[in-house]
Amino acid sequence: MIRRSLPRAFSAASALKGIPLTGSTINENVKAAKYAVRGAVLERSMELQRKMAAGEKLPFDTIVPCNIGNPHACLQVPLSFHREVLSLCISPNLATDHPHVFKEDVVERAKHYAAGLTGGVGAYTNSQGIPAVREEIAAFIAERDGHPARADRIYLTNGASEGVRILLTCLLRSGGKEDGLLTPIPQYPLYSASLTLLGGTLVPYHLNEGASWGVEMDNLRTTLAAARANGTEVRGIAVINPGNPTGNILAEEQIKDIIKMAVDEKLVVLADEVYQANIWKEGASFSSFKKVACDMGYTGEDGDDRLQLVSFHSTSKGYFGECGLRGGYMEVHGIGAEVRAELYKLASLSLCSNTVGQLATGIMINPPKPGDPSFETFQKERDDILSSLERRSIMVHKALNDLEGITCNEADGALYAFPRIRLSDKAKRAAEANGVPADEYYCLQILDQSGIVLVPGSGFGQEEGTLHFRTTFLPAEETMHETLKIMAKAHEKFMDEHRD
Amino acid sequence: MIRRSLPRAFSAASALKGIPLTGSTINENVKAAKYAVRGAVLERSMELQRKMAAGEKLPFDTIVPCNIGNPHACLQVPLSFHREVLSLCISPNLATDHPHVFKEDVVERAKHYAAGLTGGVGAYTNSQGIPAVREEIAAFIAERDGHPARADRIYLTNGASEGVRILLTCLLRSGGKEDGLLTPIPQYPLYSASLTLLGGTLVPYHLNEGASWGVEMDNLRTTLAAARANGTEVRGIAVINPGNPTGNILAEEQIKDIIKMAVDEKLVVLADEVYQANIWKEGASFSSFKKVACDMGYTGEDGDDRLQLVSFHSTSKGYFGECGLRGGYMEVHGIGAEVRAELYKLASLSLCSNTVGQLATGIMINPPKPGDPSFETFQKERDDILSSLERRSIMVHKALNDLEGITCNEADGALYAFPRIRLSDKAKRAAEANGVPADEYYCLQILDQSGIVLVPGSGFGQEEGTLHFRTTFLPAEETMHETLKIMAKAHEKFMDEHRD
Repeated sequence: MIRRSLPRAFSAASALKGIPLTGSTINENVKAAKYAVRGAVLERSMELQRKMAAGEKLPFDTIVPCNIGNPHACLQVPLSFHREVLSLCISPNLATDHPHVFKEDVVERAKHYAAGLTGGVGAYTNSQGIPAVREEIAAFIAERDGHPARADRIYLTNGASEGVRILLTCLLRSGGKEDGLLTPIPQYPLYSASLTLLGGTLVPYHLNEGASWGVEMDNLRTTLAAARANGTEVRGIAVINPGNPTGNILAEEQIKDIIKMAVDEKLVVLADEVYQANIWKEGASFSSFKKVACDMGYTGEDGDDRLQLVSFHSTSKGYFGECGLRGGYMEVHGIGAEVRAELYKLASLSLCSNTVGQLATGIMINPPKPGDPSFETFQKERDDILSSLERRSIMVHKALNDLEGITCNEADGALYAFPRIRLSDKAKRAAEANGVPADEYYCLQILDQSGIVLVPGSGFGQEEGTLHFRTTFLPAEETMHETLKIMAKAHEKFMDEHRD
Repeated sequence: MIRRSLPRAFSAASALKGIPLTGSTINENVKAAKYAVRGAVLERSMELQRKMAAGEKLPFDTIVPCNIGNPHACLQVPLSFHREVLSLCISPNLATDHPHVFKEDVVERAKHYAAGLTGGVGAYTNSQGIPAVREEIAAFIAERDGHPARADRIYLTNGASEGVRILLTCLLRSGGKEDGLLTPIPQYPLYSASLTLLGGTLVPYHLNEGASWGVEMDNLRTTLAAARANGTEVRGIAVINPGNPTGNILAEEQIKDIIKMAVDEKLVVLADEVYQANIWKEGASFSSFKKVACDMGYTGEDGDDRLQLVSFHSTSKGYFGECGLRGGYMEVHGIGAEVRAELYKLASLSLCSNTVGQLATGIMINPPKPGDPSFETFQKERDDILSSLERRSIMVHKALNDLEGITCNEADGALYAFPRIRLSDKAKRAAEANGVPADEYYCLQILDQSGIVLVPGSGFGQEEGTLHFRTTFLPAEETMHETLKIMAKAHEKFMDEHRD
């Protein structure tokens, strides 16, 4: 518990030096970490919001937050069954005091959870999560994949982000070792920021924009070999499927290739599968890494650690969109008992993830079934959300491709468009004069004109010499036409003002 | 974003070495971290629970979890107003569809929060927390301390633990620097475990058991000087007030002395004040570090960073006891804008803390007021909990002091007793033969006999040559007499079996 360092000469200055926590004495890894989804463009949008609130006249009436996959903030309506069960778990006496308020299956589900929760939602749970919820998740995975899943391999977390943090904390060793993670470019910046924070090395493998942002195995192998030759101990590979920000869906063959490589090269696979219920491409379906691994015979049973795989899921996306509740889980596969105990210890340091988020995760993967009193409402709510998201995805991609200088792959899945934009030399010079990257300059200008908050491609990483931005397609369907018109106008104005 | 390391010769072995994530290739800091509150004794209790469930006959009927301050797990009843507001925030239509279910002030409060929450509880909030809740907290602090507080200095967190993690991540620099934190011994093991995890150095300052576990300034200064002479860059001091596990309450004079030293020696003060509503000592009251700092003229306003102070609070303790909801906040004082921006960035990496926990924090510090429809019920519920806790504290301390070989300071505050125990040489030899520390051996033996889960003092740190354990006084009042009788019997048996 108590580390002793080598003695060194006492210097009076060390007692007299400046205040301890300043911009120049803070942990340098914290300072270096970047998280663009909540970066400079969002800062500027909050400033504009304050100006509007103070009565200042701006070229738009409202800020449209397309920077982040936050469906409820864009007025997506929560699912009734899910919310009612949560309300009842929090105030169990509502059902006894007011017997006709809740449907039978709502009451039953709340009772089921209560039976597994000594002390209710107010008590710390097992640090790995409520056993009854982990059993539900295991049943969901088994049904989804057609292969067994075990509750003791599941860790409930505050969103998927916490799972990624815990896993990377274990994987990246301290003490100056050059441990690295193969990370797709473009990527969700949680990975780059976590790597910087933990002192690890991001080993970028570029997705191929020309082939629907697919993974190229040759490129992946070359990248790995080069990083290793360069002294990086590459210990894992992150895969985001469906892709964020790219929307790409991996075919089973591609997943198989990645798994083969991970086995050969001894890499832990981090499978970020939080968009698994957001599949838009005609005829496409989601295959989990876990399913393909089991199909290939990597059972992950005790003693089979040929493939080490950790999958992440979240309540924040899909048709559920419950970002604020911070629910999620990770499932570990091929990870031995000793490491699982360390994961448990890390989780226990935060005691447990929040109970409401845990229950929300259970309800998400175990919704009402046909015949249940809440089923019809649930089905309608779910289908309305998914079909509207699909329509909005098509609208956004079409509108973007219609703009001068913009090309955009269709989103096969997930909640984003990630268009490529070609900017003039004049625009690039203007960006340089403003001391910001060209894509950020573009996003700031669009924001100032339209109130639409985009995220510059540089926040996700992009092939050198290319420029992109990410936008969600989450603004409410009723306002989408108008939003796209405003966007088009702002874009045209930008292009006109920056012609060479 | 992408770190490059120095090239080194490529070794084929690096591609062919073993599986990446094992007990011997995991981050060594993770492995070294210890968190006794959920350690070996708890593991054993879970094993016993499984045996009981499988029908095995044990010397007791029930496991009594005295290892952790988890009041609801010990059947403490949640507060009605608080839970009803949360239920309504989750399902706002309950109030419109069923107008007579909720009291007027419950509906009003839920509406107040809804007005400040675009998208409701399902949306990510500002990463620092819901502005309306931060305003409530600022008002609470201002009233508590008689000094102004600002919403923009408050960060809502998943329990207090997350705040401590974020702050220490900023304070302890990476790259092999020997950054240290003065930490009380005994301490809550979140501090020791976080320091190990982050590669920092725990600089222990011993509390004086002979003086009600008070802080001794001379000892503190000597400890600091010795650590600095030894090469540790001591950058902060953790203070737990009221104390965990000690129950000590710091007087304003003592707080003043610690603040003076922090200013002189340029130390960030981490004030863990999560037990501020658990004050048992006749005539004693809680003074926050923030209050005393402001009394001394350290305003913490922009530009006044002479004193850097971060205070932590939580929904988990007090009379609220809402551990599972994971609500909490930290208030920063004398911390400049640049560092505050870094704290925001770190918080934003997890998007935001869970919304239900955020709202629970707001309700905790802003309960019903006299005249409100819910006030009388609230007052009765609160007073019942606090007076019962006080009675149980007295019962536990009296019973422990009656046992052979045990002496126990009274708990002036918090939720624990931390008795000293004198064990025979025979007991110590038996512990050695079992390969565990003597206090852990004692706790394991008591568990096996009684089902009562204690935590060995070594998990908190203790003066060399002394042995302790920690117990909560949370078991339900109805069963407390019986629990203490069972504990006494198990203790007597242990003492009899281990006489020299």
